[in-house]
Amino acid sequence: MKEDLKQYIEENKDRWLEELFELIRIPSISSKEAHKDDMYTACDWIKASLLEKGADKAEVYETEGHPAIYGEKMIDPSLPTVLVYGHYDVQPVEPLDLWKSKPFEPEIRDGKIYARGADDDKGQMFMHFAAFEYLVKTNQLPCNVKFMIEGEEEIGSPSLGKFMEDHRDMLAGDVILVSDTSMLSAENPSITTGLRGLSYVEVHVTGPNRDLHSGLYGGAVANPINELCKLIGSLTDENGKITVKGFYDDVEELSEEERKEMGRAPFDLEAYKKSLDLKEVAGEKGYSTLERVGIRPSLDVNGIWGGHTDKGAKTVLPSTAHAKISMRLVPHQDSKKITQLFKDHFLSIAPDCVKVEVEFLHGGEGYVSPTNTTEYQAASKAYELTYNKKPIPVRSGGSIPIISLFEKILGIKSILMGFGLESDAIHSPNENYPLTQFFRGIETIPHFYQFYTEMKK
Amino acid sequence: MKEDLKQYIEENKDRWLEELFELIRIPSISSKEAHKDDMYTACDWIKASLLEKGADKAEVYETEGHPAIYGEKMIDPSLPTVLVYGHYDVQPVEPLDLWKSKPFEPEIRDGKIYARGADDDKGQMFMHFAAFEYLVKTNQLPCNVKFMIEGEEEIGSPSLGKFMEDHRDMLAGDVILVSDTSMLSAENPSITTGLRGLSYVEVHVTGPNRDLHSGLYGGAVANPINELCKLIGSLTDENGKITVKGFYDDVEELSEEERKEMGRAPFDLEAYKKSLDLKEVAGEKGYSTLERVGIRPSLDVNGIWGGHTDKGAKTVLPSTAHAKISMRLVPHQDSKKITQLFKDHFLSIAPDCVKVEVEFLHGGEGYVSPTNTTEYQAASKAYELTYNKKPIPVRSGGSIPIISLFEKILGIKSILMGFGLESDAIHSPNENYPLTQFFRGIETIPHFYQFYTEMKK
Repeated sequence: MKEDLKQYIEENKDRWLEELFELIRIPSISSKEAHKDDMYTACDWIKASLLEKGADKAEVYETEGHPAIYGEKMIDPSLPTVLVYGHYDVQPVEPLDLWKSKPFEPEIRDGKIYARGADDDKGQMFMHFAAFEYLVKTNQLPCNVKFMIEGEEEIGSPSLGKFMEDHRDMLAGDVILVSDTSMLSAENPSITTGLRGLSYVEVHVTGPNRDLHSGLYGGAVANPINELCKLIGSLTDENGKITVKGFYDDVEELSEEERKEMGRAPFDLEAYKKSLDLKEVAGEKGYSTLERVGIRPSLDVNGIWGGHTDKGAKTVLPSTAHAKISMRLVPHQDSKKITQLFKDHFLSIAPDCVKVEVEFLHGGEGYVSPTNTTEYQAASKAYELTYNKKPIPVRSGGSIPIISLFEKILGIKSILMGFGLESDAIHSPNENYPLTQFFRGIETIPHFYQFYTEMKK
Repeated sequence: MKEDLKQYIEENKDRWLEELFELIRIPSISSKEAHKDDMYTACDWIKASLLEKGADKAEVYETEGHPAIYGEKMIDPSLPTVLVYGHYDVQPVEPLDLWKSKPFEPEIRDGKIYARGADDDKGQMFMHFAAFEYLVKTNQLPCNVKFMIEGEEEIGSPSLGKFMEDHRDMLAGDVILVSDTSMLSAENPSITTGLRGLSYVEVHVTGPNRDLHSGLYGGAVANPINELCKLIGSLTDENGKITVKGFYDDVEELSEEERKEMGRAPFDLEAYKKSLDLKEVAGEKGYSTLERVGIRPSLDVNGIWGGHTDKGAKTVLPSTAHAKISMRLVPHQDSKKITQLFKDHFLSIAPDCVKVEVEFLHGGEGYVSPTNTTEYQAASKAYELTYNKKPIPVRSGGSIPIISLFEKILGIKSILMGFGLESDAIHSPNENYPLTQFFRGIETIPHFYQFYTEMKK
């Protein structure tokens, strides 16, 4: 397979890029009502693409939110079935002025595709479409393949649980294959074996019932921005610990041995700081940078706003202030429980001079997968064939809440074969995806199918 | 004078309102570049209005910023000269969705003019134009009158100092008459005898050099919003004291006697809380609400922004966070010194994991005026004639930085005859000005001219 696969990629790469660019051009931002129609356009495109690449059937399914696509090619019920998961929705693109090229007009610069979704997840998802095409067109598909593509990953997949419950039989399979994570670096392949959970809330602080003149009232009436800052400032202490009562109750402390094993991952702190233009890193005392994102929870303000945010010096004491706050959770921390703990804590520390509300936006559970499974071993061998290096198992700080949902509802384990790089700037301006990673992904996936099927026999 | 004045007002009130509305319709927002042309339109309108009302001359003067207008009617050099100050610029109008009628389309509802500038300061300034018209047209002008109208009050009057320095002789006079403050209530006339100074800065906190994914980096890289909140939160302590080093060094502690005298001003805390829909007031421990705005400095965040502020749950760890922070100062606190103290303090408390900048936006000095002056006594008598009640001297929490500048450059004391009410919502959506206050102001001003001229003889 190895040689003809390389040749097939070489012969089809330009067409694949054109196809991917078509998909990228559809601005399917799931969090914005204005893009509702774009979600359907993307679905129709994916359905057509799957059929074109060799699926026996492909359908767009309405859900309670944005539609999902299911496709399949069943060659023999006695063979294993790989269920490929991907998502066609993307993050918002603001701030637009920081983009060097337009987010929905993909451009190749310095060997990288620049666009929103170039990596997350349109680019990584499309690698599976291309690999599938290769396997079908060259008659080398070794097993059954199913595709489950959703349009709500970036907003917490609120409708996917019900979709899976409603279609358990249709979605039945042996393993779920997901490319929505990244590798340690282009030279150091890795497989994500852990993900953090998420609890994402929005808080609202209200002071006086209208904007006031900060001269006539300043000092006598609580300013909701000052109060919000005090509240947020108190959520972490001087050791970088989160102060929400009960927050660490279910956090598993890893053994010294496990931490030592994790510490073997190549990591250059100076290069990391340099790439981010940071004088110092920060975080929970007593843990390394990789541990801080891999095995420890975190609390970040993702957005804050209030008062006069335009140019100039408006002397207003505003009526309200707002913030979006998310907590990344480690396995065993239940996101619903944490959300409730946060809410209780935040309301309990709010002073009488303001009104405080906590609104739940979304959440999901963390995930840890063992490395002694068939799928991990098959993935490991597939990476090794492409990269000439055995991949390292790592715990990522990100969240794909649906991974734990897959196991809960469908009873299927997932294998996270990500090809993204840290420098891909996903969720940021100038998101990009290196062409080498894109094509190496397409090269690795068919080998996974092959090894997995062989090992399952 | 009293009876024919009332009659004159009655006969001309509709026309005056029409004239004021013309001026209000010009959206002369000084802080916004887009309104540059509107500033000239407003100047031309004011020049024409002053000439029409009886000024011997009126001219628009270019300054380093927005233009100013000077007008005069000199009847006899041996008589006193009153210099009327006003400003034609207004505050921004955001958030627009909270306005019940459009900010630049004045509307009368429930006996109040609703519009940006209805009170501050177009409405209050125009009272002087109308009063001047009455005195000239009825041949009762008892003294010389000069008008100095500027277009940068809401942005700290950056060009007025130079304008005054350049035109000292032209602006020479005995007293500066200003209506840009408010009274205790419609039933309790008061004269502002103190104003707070101002130091207004913008702070910028930068973490990583680009927006990051809060999953992949959260917990390991300092979040500039979290850090900004911590910094701001630390600027006031649990007693409501400002923690900036040296901040209180020049704050004058009033004697128990002076505080007792101030405490005589009628003030209903329950009504105050109710009108603002507050469960509790807040502020510096050991001081009453009126003292907190009148004789104590304050620190307010006037605006804050960073990260994802649109709808939805974007999991971003932003690169930057920003806030506008202003401090109201009491007499003897030097605004330049305080700005420097703030900057030094803020930079000194910033952690190594972020970069912090402090940008000066504007500032001005506080002011206290004695009550035993001719102008105070004349104003007091004028109010008493209109309101049948002796006005109370009060220290306002607001700032009109140019009042201290007037004294410094022109050597002239000011008298602050304000007719605004707390409920006028200046600087806020639905700014308004009650018609009764507008017409009572027009009624009071000619008496001031009369008493002042008599007492000066």
